[in-house]
Amino acid sequence: MAAPIDFYFDFSSPYSYIASEEIEAIAERHGRALNWRPLLLGVVFKSAGGTPLTEGYGPKARYVVRDFARSAAHVGVPYRHPSVFPIGAVAATRAVLWLQRELPAQVGPFIHAVYRAFFVADRNVSEAPVVMSIAQELGIDPARLAAGVQEEAIKLGLRAEVEQAIERGVFGAPTIVVDGEMFWGHDRLAQVERWIATGPF
Amino acid sequence: MAAPIDFYFDFSSPYSYIASEEIEAIAERHGRALNWRPLLLGVVFKSAGGTPLTEGYGPKARYVVRDFARSAAHVGVPYRHPSVFPIGAVAATRAVLWLQRELPAQVGPFIHAVYRAFFVADRNVSEAPVVMSIAQELGIDPARLAAGVQEEAIKLGLRAEVEQAIERGVFGAPTIVVDGEMFWGHDRLAQVERWIATGPF
Repeated sequence: MAAPIDFYFDFSSPYSYIASEEIEAIAERHGRALNWRPLLLGVVFKSAGGTPLTEGYGPKARYVVRDFARSAAHVGVPYRHPSVFPIGAVAATRAVLWLQRELPAQVGPFIHAVYRAFFVADRNVSEAPVVMSIAQELGIDPARLAAGVQEEAIKLGLRAEVEQAIERGVFGAPTIVVDGEMFWGHDRLAQVERWIATGPF
Repeated sequence: MAAPIDFYFDFSSPYSYIASEEIEAIAERHGRALNWRPLLLGVVFKSAGGTPLTEGYGPKARYVVRDFARSAAHVGVPYRHPSVFPIGAVAATRAVLWLQRELPAQVGPFIHAVYRAFFVADRNVSEAPVVMSIAQELGIDPARLAAGVQEEAIKLGLRAEVEQAIERGVFGAPTIVVDGEMFWGHDRLAQVERWIATGPF
């Protein structure tokens, strides 16, 4: 059985969002399972030294906002730059771990719904009530989820997940790992697919 | 007459090298002239705050070295990571300006020859004698070129070129500007070609 694809993502990362809309089809085309691996980029950046792309040097910040929309349009993914950006989506990120334990079939739909709420509908998914409302729209019990994201096991689980990613060498998002090979960026998906289809190059 | 494509590059930038092997074919396919616009990334980074990709956080530095070779292989460009890297290729960069004035037909061939010397043959193109030797192999008089890169007009010309790029918002390499739209990275060449072929998206 071929190894699954590890897909590391952060809810505040536009390039992770774009890649999230394409990675399942790649996995399906090649009979691979997909592991959604949530990150908190703010924690990763404390080790790896990065900063949000829209903070810092003005011309670069303006360029990337243009590039988010253009790169999304290039692959046919809807994009509207959020009015509050970047965010720290701790509740939504913990919710992914809770769903992986309690309702695994909802993991993919929930991730897509959170991303589209943020990057298309301009809903502030850093706010827990917004996350619970998105969950409810998917038929997930918002009270159970609200309790779940406060569980100590889930909090510790997310911390361990992020630390494990950093130990593995993850420094940004999206990061895709397949058969031990690491790829960084939505713009590496063609390389990911080639690697899966025909092996190392 | 359609506007030319501005191609900003640095001789020490692997992704600029990869893009340099593809950009002429894109320009030719769409009847566009190509402006080779040399940068000194070290000067750009003083304004824009960047650092060489291989300096800093270890896992990222190791990743990008792997990505340089893999991304080159993905588009069929030969790549061997230079044993001295990064470099500041001031003489080679000034030589581009001198050739643009004196021997414009040699500009493209010289740029390709310098890049291949550095990224395939592992010659240290930061050394002026290596640059003159590469020029001689192309039939350019090395004594004339050696004098040319010491001309005050060429030195000032390069300084002005880099400052103009920074004023335009260039913060990294390669940067491609076409019809007022800016693209950063060899991985945006498909977007560049689409923009030229069918307009804004």
